[in-house]
Amino acid sequence: MSSKVGQVIKCKAAVAWEAGKPLVIEEVEVAPPQAGEVRLKIIYTSLCHSDVYYWENGKGRNLLFPRILGHEAAGIVESIGEGVTHLKPGDHALPVFTGECGECPHCKSEESNLCETLRVNTDRGVMLSDGQSRFSINGKPIFHFVGTSTFSEYTVVHAKCVAKINPAAPLDKVCVLSCGFCTGLGATLNVAKPKPGSSVAVFGLGAVGLAAAEGARLSGASRIIGVDLISSKFEQAKKFGVTEFVNPKDHDKPVQQVIVEMTNGGVDRALECSGNIEAAIAAFESVHDGWGVAVIVGLPKNDDVFKTLSMNFLFERTVKGTFYGNYKPLTDLPTMVEKYLNKELELEKFITHSVPFSEINKSFEYMRKGESIRCIIRMEE
Amino acid sequence: MSSKVGQVIKCKAAVAWEAGKPLVIEEVEVAPPQAGEVRLKIIYTSLCHSDVYYWENGKGRNLLFPRILGHEAAGIVESIGEGVTHLKPGDHALPVFTGECGECPHCKSEESNLCETLRVNTDRGVMLSDGQSRFSINGKPIFHFVGTSTFSEYTVVHAKCVAKINPAAPLDKVCVLSCGFCTGLGATLNVAKPKPGSSVAVFGLGAVGLAAAEGARLSGASRIIGVDLISSKFEQAKKFGVTEFVNPKDHDKPVQQVIVEMTNGGVDRALECSGNIEAAIAAFESVHDGWGVAVIVGLPKNDDVFKTLSMNFLFERTVKGTFYGNYKPLTDLPTMVEKYLNKELELEKFITHSVPFSEINKSFEYMRKGESIRCIIRMEE
Repeated sequence: MSSKVGQVIKCKAAVAWEAGKPLVIEEVEVAPPQAGEVRLKIIYTSLCHSDVYYWENGKGRNLLFPRILGHEAAGIVESIGEGVTHLKPGDHALPVFTGECGECPHCKSEESNLCETLRVNTDRGVMLSDGQSRFSINGKPIFHFVGTSTFSEYTVVHAKCVAKINPAAPLDKVCVLSCGFCTGLGATLNVAKPKPGSSVAVFGLGAVGLAAAEGARLSGASRIIGVDLISSKFEQAKKFGVTEFVNPKDHDKPVQQVIVEMTNGGVDRALECSGNIEAAIAAFESVHDGWGVAVIVGLPKNDDVFKTLSMNFLFERTVKGTFYGNYKPLTDLPTMVEKYLNKELELEKFITHSVPFSEINKSFEYMRKGESIRCIIRMEE
Repeated sequence: MSSKVGQVIKCKAAVAWEAGKPLVIEEVEVAPPQAGEVRLKIIYTSLCHSDVYYWENGKGRNLLFPRILGHEAAGIVESIGEGVTHLKPGDHALPVFTGECGECPHCKSEESNLCETLRVNTDRGVMLSDGQSRFSINGKPIFHFVGTSTFSEYTVVHAKCVAKINPAAPLDKVCVLSCGFCTGLGATLNVAKPKPGSSVAVFGLGAVGLAAAEGARLSGASRIIGVDLISSKFEQAKKFGVTEFVNPKDHDKPVQQVIVEMTNGGVDRALECSGNIEAAIAAFESVHDGWGVAVIVGLPKNDDVFKTLSMNFLFERTVKGTFYGNYKPLTDLPTMVEKYLNKELELEKFITHSVPFSEINKSFEYMRKGESIRCIIRMEE
């Protein structure tokens, strides 16, 4: 393709015209990047549960349609807008749904990755500089999704939401680092921080939960208790370090009580990765007094209320939340890619399916049926 | 007094015969310490809000009467039971309502001070070894209170609840280390851990809250926001580092919203020291996203439920509880006494009143009227 720098690119994108209806591959126009933006050629993208969530019903959130979903991806910088200095055309890169402006109090804090300017905003479907979309079909704008919209051959992303990575990394593997894997792994390694020999419970054995379990395995936890409503997930979870399994449906008492009894007082750490509020409460009430820490990872509904007896805190229990595993995307993703290249991270086992772009709707089916952990979408096919 | 080692001691004690009725100074018999116990001569004791709480109504807890209350005190070891090696008669010591057996998983953990054997038990009125009280009047047992019962000239305490301290320390000052001061100070220094220059909100400006503020001052916090329903407490609180004051009654919006607006997004740390569940929720909802930590210090009611939107956790906020400021009594109290002797801790400003033992009921009046921070009770007068 001849250079389209500064011009509109026409390409294929999978458009969600309305909630829950199959995506339609359309020809879209992708405007050139404005100041502080980059245009990426997406090579591989993968489907994350959050794409399905916002596509299906948004659980009460404001929904924007038509929209181009997608936020786990890897690609190559096609062109850059004014003022972009950390990327150049040809760079291999991971777009991320949250950013790192480097200037705000959060970016300057060692403790937070919630960039004030570029943190995720699921209700915004436009770019920050001008409040416009860069996508259109016959002049009619199509909304962005979390600033990434990777279900398109080309997309425009805020530059400080794009991490430059080692070009030696296989893009069909490292694309999963953009969301679920880092969210789960970081929740364990950066937030829960289990000690070697400790016990860890993981609620919800989807991709995020399995990555959290993987973090517990890498930390040397001796007991990793997986909790899920689907017992068949246990077999697969063993590959990610899960040593024991509890299906709350198999018990006539609350799951937190089952776990407390199994562990002589509670687990050292619990990670809630299902997005279910009852699971969040159960995770907290499963931790040991004195030192137990529960980390809430799963995305709750807007009006979900966390309720527990205040006495549970008095006995030195902690509950905390995390967002994207507390990783700072521009700072930490290049390092994560290097760890993968050094064989310190096993991304392959998260990738269970693969489809060409033309069959993207199949990936939604795999996810909804609970068959896939990650399904890679091959954009060039 | 001639040696009474191994014999019953007759002495004066302030007995609570029933809830809410003035204590009565009685002659009681104090049995000799059994294995693992020590008998202490109490020289100074001070009144803590928890004494008043269990004397008044116990907020729905099982109450044991007649009972000898009191748990903040300093004294001298009179005699020791079999197997006691870390104390000998004549040692200066602080009895504590919680212990440190040194053997259980909690004592072996760096993270917990909730000794499995000797942690506080407000529902137990007897000694652990034989389930009997060491106090009696004419053969009728009088219940212990949290293993200390320091409103008696002599008391029997589990040895691993008694910290040996430097005999150079003035007992009329260091007696306040046994409960409230350490609870508040440790909540800040050991649990909330504010950084220099940070903002800290303290809910409840009683002794524990003032000690928490003192911890924030010692940590170099630049803004210390005191929250209390009694505005007159602010003047006194300034001595403990409080720089700003919020009375929730002065505002027509929730206090958490007031604090978030005052601090451009929330305080870095919040400490709940009132025991009120609404304050606990407000404290959590007052902390900044990304790094905010709320520490629940105040004793809740048994059935108090902590409720907050789960979304508040997602944005990287933490809530945790603490018990006795996470200090391990035998390990840490001797060090705290040394810090006082080195002028690193200002205990004097917590001591606002003093009464002879015969006027102990006055100390209850000072506390209930909110006049005192700490009232010292001089046992030898």
